[in-house]
Amino acid sequence: MKHYKLILFLCLAFLSHLVTAQNQEVDNEEEFKPSPVNQPGSEYPMVNEKGQVRTQISAPEAKKVQLDIGGVKYDMEKDEEGVWTGESAPQDEGFHYYQLNIDGASVPDPGSLYFYGANRWGSGIEVPAQDQDFFALKNVPHGKVEQILFPSKSTDTSRRAFVYTPPEYDLEPNKSYPVLYLQHGYGENETSWPNQGRANLIMDNLLAEGKTKPFIIVMTYGMTNEIEFGGLRDFDIEPFQTVLVNELIPYIDTHYRTKANKENRAMAGLSMGAFETKLITLNKPEVFSYYALFSGGIYESKELQDRSKPELIFISTGSKERPDAVKSAVSELQKEGFNAVSYVSEGTAHEFHTWRRSLHQLAPLLFQIEE
Amino acid sequence: MKHYKLILFLCLAFLSHLVTAQNQEVDNEEEFKPSPVNQPGSEYPMVNEKGQVRTQISAPEAKKVQLDIGGVKYDMEKDEEGVWTGESAPQDEGFHYYQLNIDGASVPDPGSLYFYGANRWGSGIEVPAQDQDFFALKNVPHGKVEQILFPSKSTDTSRRAFVYTPPEYDLEPNKSYPVLYLQHGYGENETSWPNQGRANLIMDNLLAEGKTKPFIIVMTYGMTNEIEFGGLRDFDIEPFQTVLVNELIPYIDTHYRTKANKENRAMAGLSMGAFETKLITLNKPEVFSYYALFSGGIYESKELQDRSKPELIFISTGSKERPDAVKSAVSELQKEGFNAVSYVSEGTAHEFHTWRRSLHQLAPLLFQIEE
Repeated sequence: MKHYKLILFLCLAFLSHLVTAQNQEVDNEEEFKPSPVNQPGSEYPMVNEKGQVRTQISAPEAKKVQLDIGGVKYDMEKDEEGVWTGESAPQDEGFHYYQLNIDGASVPDPGSLYFYGANRWGSGIEVPAQDQDFFALKNVPHGKVEQILFPSKSTDTSRRAFVYTPPEYDLEPNKSYPVLYLQHGYGENETSWPNQGRANLIMDNLLAEGKTKPFIIVMTYGMTNEIEFGGLRDFDIEPFQTVLVNELIPYIDTHYRTKANKENRAMAGLSMGAFETKLITLNKPEVFSYYALFSGGIYESKELQDRSKPELIFISTGSKERPDAVKSAVSELQKEGFNAVSYVSEGTAHEFHTWRRSLHQLAPLLFQIEE
Repeated sequence: MKHYKLILFLCLAFLSHLVTAQNQEVDNEEEFKPSPVNQPGSEYPMVNEKGQVRTQISAPEAKKVQLDIGGVKYDMEKDEEGVWTGESAPQDEGFHYYQLNIDGASVPDPGSLYFYGANRWGSGIEVPAQDQDFFALKNVPHGKVEQILFPSKSTDTSRRAFVYTPPEYDLEPNKSYPVLYLQHGYGENETSWPNQGRANLIMDNLLAEGKTKPFIIVMTYGMTNEIEFGGLRDFDIEPFQTVLVNELIPYIDTHYRTKANKENRAMAGLSMGAFETKLITLNKPEVFSYYALFSGGIYESKELQDRSKPELIFISTGSKERPDAVKSAVSELQKEGFNAVSYVSEGTAHEFHTWRRSLHQLAPLLFQIEE
């Protein structure tokens, strides 16, 4: 009788284990879904709710294939048909750059769309974020993202910029708009804000909810990538400042219906683009009156002496970066009488989800004083 | 004496051969230049004047790496540091899709920019063409390429299109413009004409030379890629025709300053986009009056009965495709009193250089009759 109970117990335990294991496997399989930024028709890469990335590639003759994401390389495994599959540890919610490594060659994953970051067009993946609704493509009126090629005497070429115009722009031919100049980071370019940054969809959604004033956003290349990263001390802001202030802004004010004055002009940037924003807004107090730094430095009140106060100073960072430094810098500015606002993106690091959220927080604060 | 002369002759011949061989090798090395559509800072892939493509990738552990272009796989060779280099046979001038094969994995070349074609974002290369000046980025006034997201009830989503507006568009707020609807081919999408097609630069250059009237170009996804290639008989034009005629055209006519009538509307397409153009212009004679087919079928006069004659029928092809069929079809149309024009792109096949040239030939012929 004793043995019978023991055997029954063991049998039940074993069956229970089997069922659990099977369920887990089923759950695990079911929860991996194609990333929203895959190539049309591509099932892989996938992401699950924990933020793990799983990808797959056929490479029958390869000895070693790895998924390289977040600074870690994960070994993938080959099946009988030569298809390699592998998974990463959980990633932060939001957008990440990644690549594959096939027998020593670093290449984009053919399954993903490609984005410019880390100084190259390469793979990107979207780990679903709890707040992803704010940058989703919805059934609301949509603004445009316009590629312009503007003449630049100082660099002797036609330079590219992307210009977001709000949905009403073409329907209100007698109305003029303020402008935000919005910069990418090191290793990125003028495509980064409209592509992985989703700047246009963030604005479309805010506007549909009546949460921001309509304004134009201009995104151009900040000429940051020609220097070695870490060589920031050697970075000379003059060439880009000349392009932006002497060439691009006049072109925009001629070709778009802008409110072409300081009161209706803002500058913001992320990471090295924040560094550029700080330098240019300090050099050119007569050009901008709204200043915003995303994950890239702070303003000190002494830097803002001998000038009229800007309408707004916005400084943001991911909670996994240096939130205390940002909060205390903003407190200091507030004590000195500045209209300063800090924002900390919870659970994110030095990546685009921090900056999408920063733009989403910044936009409603811009252009509140009409002049 | 006789021997002396013979030996001298042989020596000179040998030396001459050596010098020639050496010069050839030097020339060969020197003439390979980075492709104009490489990633920023990438030296490879390269192209020489013969149209050979040479590329390079570091893959120290790989057993076999191939360059896959024009339907042929070329074995690459590994050096001591694990860097593979390989060259293709000469390619036609113009743009080509290609990829690398690393131990059985087909992947994009990390050195090139990426283009949508062959049903995927992948590598592209530009073999310098003798006539490349017509699509070059020059110091002339530039129009814009605008990304719009237009509402589509029939497909229950926001759909993307790119809209080219001529340089003067923003400077002439009281002027209205004709519109060309321009379709990509099978395996391509709405990015193909503005990216590899260079539609905007072709127009900017023609306008700068006073060779075409200014008009708007609208490029959207032709919904072609969901069917298997070869399954054309099963292709139903209705869904795309509904999006184009009932949804996109009214949106364009509301959001842009268009001349919103048949006399000022053209449709053109390449390959499967030509097939779509033919079907839609035949189904909707009240919508378009300029019809153009690039490398994709012909019109027969009997298909055009019982309707007023279109202002123009333009049919083009590469000389390596079926030029005789196009020429004889156009002769037949001319005999029946149609304003029909044929164009044959010399030395090119079913690729984008044929279609860039076709647009360059077509544009000056459009919208000659104002009503």
